[in-house]
Amino acid sequence: MNAFILSENRFDPKNIRKNESIMCRGNGYMCVRASLEEKYIGEQRNTLINGVFNAPPGEVSEIAVLPDATNCEIEIGGERFDMIRTDIQEYSRILDMKAGEGVRSLVWKSNSGRIRLEFKSIVSLTKKHITALKISITPLDQDTEIKIRAGIDAKVTNTGVQHFSAPVRRVYEDGILGLYLKTLQSGVDVSVHCRCSCDKPYKEEYTTDRRSVYSCISLSVKQGETAIFQKLTSYATSRDVEYAETDVCPETVNRDGTEYLKQALLCGYDALYAESAEMWKKYWEQSPLEICGSDFENKAISFAKYHLNVMASKDDNRVGIGAKGLSGEGYKGHSFWDTEIFILPYYIYTEPETARRLLEYRYKLLDSALLKAKRYGFEGAMYPWEGAWLTDGETCPEEGDLDLMTGEVRKNMMGEIEVHISADIAYAVWQYFQATGDEDFMQHCGYEMILLTAYFWSSRIAEKNGRYEILGVIGPDEYKDNIDNNAYTNYMAFYNLKLAEKIMDKIPEHLRKKYDTQKMLCRITETAERLYLPKADKDGIIPAFDGYRDLEETDTSKYKNRDKVGLIFKDYGFDEIQKLQVGKQADTIMLFHLLGDMFSDEEIKRNYEFYEQRTLHDSSLSMCFHALVGAKCALADEAAAMYHRACSVDIGENVNNSDEGIHSASIGGIWLALAMGFGGLCVEDGMLSVSPILPKGWSGYRFTVCFCGTRLLIETDSSGSQVKRLCGEEKEIRLSGKKLVV
Amino acid sequence: MNAFILSENRFDPKNIRKNESIMCRGNGYMCVRASLEEKYIGEQRNTLINGVFNAPPGEVSEIAVLPDATNCEIEIGGERFDMIRTDIQEYSRILDMKAGEGVRSLVWKSNSGRIRLEFKSIVSLTKKHITALKISITPLDQDTEIKIRAGIDAKVTNTGVQHFSAPVRRVYEDGILGLYLKTLQSGVDVSVHCRCSCDKPYKEEYTTDRRSVYSCISLSVKQGETAIFQKLTSYATSRDVEYAETDVCPETVNRDGTEYLKQALLCGYDALYAESAEMWKKYWEQSPLEICGSDFENKAISFAKYHLNVMASKDDNRVGIGAKGLSGEGYKGHSFWDTEIFILPYYIYTEPETARRLLEYRYKLLDSALLKAKRYGFEGAMYPWEGAWLTDGETCPEEGDLDLMTGEVRKNMMGEIEVHISADIAYAVWQYFQATGDEDFMQHCGYEMILLTAYFWSSRIAEKNGRYEILGVIGPDEYKDNIDNNAYTNYMAFYNLKLAEKIMDKIPEHLRKKYDTQKMLCRITETAERLYLPKADKDGIIPAFDGYRDLEETDTSKYKNRDKVGLIFKDYGFDEIQKLQVGKQADTIMLFHLLGDMFSDEEIKRNYEFYEQRTLHDSSLSMCFHALVGAKCALADEAAAMYHRACSVDIGENVNNSDEGIHSASIGGIWLALAMGFGGLCVEDGMLSVSPILPKGWSGYRFTVCFCGTRLLIETDSSGSQVKRLCGEEKEIRLSGKKLVV
Repeated sequence: MNAFILSENRFDPKNIRKNESIMCRGNGYMCVRASLEEKYIGEQRNTLINGVFNAPPGEVSEIAVLPDATNCEIEIGGERFDMIRTDIQEYSRILDMKAGEGVRSLVWKSNSGRIRLEFKSIVSLTKKHITALKISITPLDQDTEIKIRAGIDAKVTNTGVQHFSAPVRRVYEDGILGLYLKTLQSGVDVSVHCRCSCDKPYKEEYTTDRRSVYSCISLSVKQGETAIFQKLTSYATSRDVEYAETDVCPETVNRDGTEYLKQALLCGYDALYAESAEMWKKYWEQSPLEICGSDFENKAISFAKYHLNVMASKDDNRVGIGAKGLSGEGYKGHSFWDTEIFILPYYIYTEPETARRLLEYRYKLLDSALLKAKRYGFEGAMYPWEGAWLTDGETCPEEGDLDLMTGEVRKNMMGEIEVHISADIAYAVWQYFQATGDEDFMQHCGYEMILLTAYFWSSRIAEKNGRYEILGVIGPDEYKDNIDNNAYTNYMAFYNLKLAEKIMDKIPEHLRKKYDTQKMLCRITETAERLYLPKADKDGIIPAFDGYRDLEETDTSKYKNRDKVGLIFKDYGFDEIQKLQVGKQADTIMLFHLLGDMFSDEEIKRNYEFYEQRTLHDSSLSMCFHALVGAKCALADEAAAMYHRACSVDIGENVNNSDEGIHSASIGGIWLALAMGFGGLCVEDGMLSVSPILPKGWSGYRFTVCFCGTRLLIETDSSGSQVKRLCGEEKEIRLSGKKLVV
Repeated sequence: MNAFILSENRFDPKNIRKNESIMCRGNGYMCVRASLEEKYIGEQRNTLINGVFNAPPGEVSEIAVLPDATNCEIEIGGERFDMIRTDIQEYSRILDMKAGEGVRSLVWKSNSGRIRLEFKSIVSLTKKHITALKISITPLDQDTEIKIRAGIDAKVTNTGVQHFSAPVRRVYEDGILGLYLKTLQSGVDVSVHCRCSCDKPYKEEYTTDRRSVYSCISLSVKQGETAIFQKLTSYATSRDVEYAETDVCPETVNRDGTEYLKQALLCGYDALYAESAEMWKKYWEQSPLEICGSDFENKAISFAKYHLNVMASKDDNRVGIGAKGLSGEGYKGHSFWDTEIFILPYYIYTEPETARRLLEYRYKLLDSALLKAKRYGFEGAMYPWEGAWLTDGETCPEEGDLDLMTGEVRKNMMGEIEVHISADIAYAVWQYFQATGDEDFMQHCGYEMILLTAYFWSSRIAEKNGRYEILGVIGPDEYKDNIDNNAYTNYMAFYNLKLAEKIMDKIPEHLRKKYDTQKMLCRITETAERLYLPKADKDGIIPAFDGYRDLEETDTSKYKNRDKVGLIFKDYGFDEIQKLQVGKQADTIMLFHLLGDMFSDEEIKRNYEFYEQRTLHDSSLSMCFHALVGAKCALADEAAAMYHRACSVDIGENVNNSDEGIHSASIGGIWLALAMGFGGLCVEDGMLSVSPILPKGWSGYRFTVCFCGTRLLIETDSSGSQVKRLCGEEKEIRLSGKKLVV
């Protein structure tokens, strides 16, 4: 079993959207869902570029579905090729994650005899504006007439919402098709260029309609010969990082888009593939990652690493990571706390430059965070719960779930009261600094972020019961609305406050001029001192929030570990769930990883068991954290089982789970649980520490860690663990409690 | 061969869009394309309501595709029903034009055995807000589990352009689904309600996404039993005529929409069908129309009559008739001169009330026409070349054809210089008055329209060559741009001017107060006296415009009478075509029908032959007028051949001709050519005259004429012609030149 191959051996229309998501191709700048070239009912044909957001009237900003260039309709002897109920032989469809290439090959028994078809496509990792498609067509039984219609289609929408103006359409003398558009509200210019060609003599005509332009190629192919069709496409937008410092005009975007394509045309598919695959190879080689003895987990960890390379921009600090990465329009392309808590650790320990860019994105959102705090009567930095483009501010929709039967729209309070994200970001800043020692980042961004988030907490507390409490919040568990003293939130806020105290003497001069840091420190210190931190009760249970233990207990077995999530809503309304000891996802137990020092092993184990019983795992954020915490509290087998479930979120049997896109938090979480759970990776007192454990069923695993410029390989098998230095300076580290220099 | 049945005996995906157009159902208020219930690639699923227009940013107003309620997906034993390459037996699909019902029946060989399916659907003629669908499902081989998913879908767009805001979605306790939306720019409120049900015990669940709401019904059906599923839908909009005089709020539109549906639910499909079919029956019976001895022509004339009932509002004088009727989004739902010259005669002589409403629509556009004249520096009424909603003014796009290769967009001059429409409308007003004697309409609308259009001509002329000329126009033949003294335009303008002179003493007091009629009359009279009317040259040819005879002659045989239109563009660019004696469509020869009195028979015949040779018939407006004029100049056999081609425009073999919608001018023209061409119908000196001729291949024909309140039946066969009075007072008429009283 090749861990780097996602495959489908039989075409099933039910899998179209799932495969579009999990097999998507991308390079951090853009992503193309793995839609089949020929159209199908039920497909969701998305090309997305990080940062191209638009807010339609009355709705929040969302990532805009770009004109499509994946399309390619093939007609052989007048018959349209598709795979619905037709005789398809030797079918194989794969995503070769090692090389970032999608390959579909098959023999189609058409009315003109058997036709061998092979489709290959990439989004270039080296030329980030370029996508490429190559189709090989071989008539096996007779000479045939082939027609290929492919082009740029701007009729695509986000679930029916059109974000783009009427496009300008062009065909140039060299056969390049061009489409120029602008987002309707945010005014982002987009240019799409493509060129179709074939290696055998052919006739080409061009057609256009209101929102598209197509090349129609026709040619004759002799029996046994292979015609190779190629379609290269470039995308450019006025939000590209290349223009970050300038006021770019549409003509420049168009001109550069043409230039990108022309450069790509000089290469052709094969050379583009070769150079992109080479870069993918380096990506895999630079930081080996493997789970041995368990094929599924091993594939899942490769799948995670693949998508972690696809979803994050390598060079643009103005964009975040969407809850679906760039693999679909789900969650509107918004960035949540998922990035900092679930995904960022991978980058911190593997690609620290990318981690820095992601944190710089949060730094650039500080103005929005200050504004948001003011709006709600607080001070400091109250981060948007959902982030999109920098100037979009809070993009969490105010309208929540609709009760179809009453017409009532639950007010979505997350934007207002799911406040833990500010602490999560501060936490991530410190994690990054601990692992990288990047003082430059701290000077320019990090200290200010920690200071202002901490200051937010000092304004977000209420004096009650002779102490400071944090009232009216939503914690990680989103089945509970408007709760007081959520353990997760209070502890993370406390951590944030203490962090600010700790860094106070390192705060650079320009910040001391900008803020009254003395006054801020006073408030921060006082808040930290008096902040209420829920402690374990007589049963050793830390209440998830005030009154949790008084809620009704219920049998969760009906609702958990099932094919479908959200089953509890068949029996209970949202308001009723408020009254039950039942949760959607990991909440309190997350603290046992994030702030593990603050709790005893006994406490952790007891609470893990208590809360796991009461958690439905209805969120893809749940399983990976349970695996992680389970592994840390020596429940290795339970952790391995939970890890298996985490791995199944996107590539498991639950077919429609990923229709709208992959689950980026879960994907980050798979790495997180491996490295920081089973691998025990952490930084203690400035020293890197790993203490790997090997769950049953695994014969070993290895992962790399980048620590203050040194890249280490951690390998574990039944004979024990070892750490190898791959590059960088020697470091003293701790392996399973013992110090050593590598 | 049943003349009232359009049928398809084999499902072919290539015909999907054509059938959607020609088999569409409607009632003048709304129209639903005959999309199959289950989705297909290539479909164009449109529901349109006359008057619901919206102009997206930077584009002209267009008829907006409404949320779809034709959808219904059936799953049997987990398998989705569709007809692509599956074993479909006993297939039959018809549009029963006699009853306005679409019926599809078939046996599907599913994985769960053979399933008999019958789909019936109507747009109610009696309850104009209601559409209804009934599906009978009979498992023939075994008991089966059936799932039916049907609802309201607002993800549909006009070729990718979304005209509607995010909808409010509801399900009511009685299982009614509701969707409320507003057009984004024009602010029209729309409510759609639907209710799904089944006659066997079933479970129903509701689902929703961003722009849709669905009912999901599941049930078990025993072998041999039939489950009958029903889906009734109501549409209501704030532009409904019921609210014409009020400022209606969205809540009222929603409430009334619910009420319409509730009334329909009391009936159910069968009763709705029965009452609607009864009204269709009356429609057919009231004015018999038949061509005997030629099945195809007979079907075509029924097809025309069917669509003439579907396309025109019966009660709203604020809407016109689109170039595609309401059968598709082609031509953006705009009204052209097609209405007055090609379509209106049918209504004048069959449904004079509808004709009046259509002319009132033009009356209500007078303000736009006055404004447009001013904009271009003229006086009087210069009618919009393309009309949409009353306040939209001229909606002819200023951007014409795009040259993909140069990027140049030809400026579309039609809105500015295709001026003959103003004379066409005045002409139609007088035709209406001649046939109805409706002095009330003339007092309120007609006289003012004639006066102001005539006055426009008095400002549109230029003094040249010692006379008045009309320079820089486009005539009916749109292959010629910016020509001088187009015969059609000059003659029609002359007619318009003389008409104004004629009615001057009948102009009512209120108009005499409103306008300086004396001054206007002076100018009108002087213009008529001095206006240049191109006369036959030495060869007896009336030049279509200045310099026509000097243009190069070309062999048109390569381009005409072919499967495709526009073939000449393969050899010539638009600018080159300007220099050729070649035309797209009937132009000068139209005068021989409209103003036949002004030309000698010899002149007509000679010019008909001359111009027909030079006409490519690349417009659907061409053949019917050639048939009409051919018949009048005793070229009966040529006329019959041309008539056959006119009949083929929509229901002929050319499969994709009608994909975007039926051709309403051609459909009107089919009636026109029959009644006024072969039938010789006209009004002379206030007396109705018919003088039928029988072309070879026809054994007879009959049609009715409503003349000043009396309805007459004209019947012709090889033994001669007779006229019967169906209702109304006795009238003296002329039959083949002889006066008689019927």
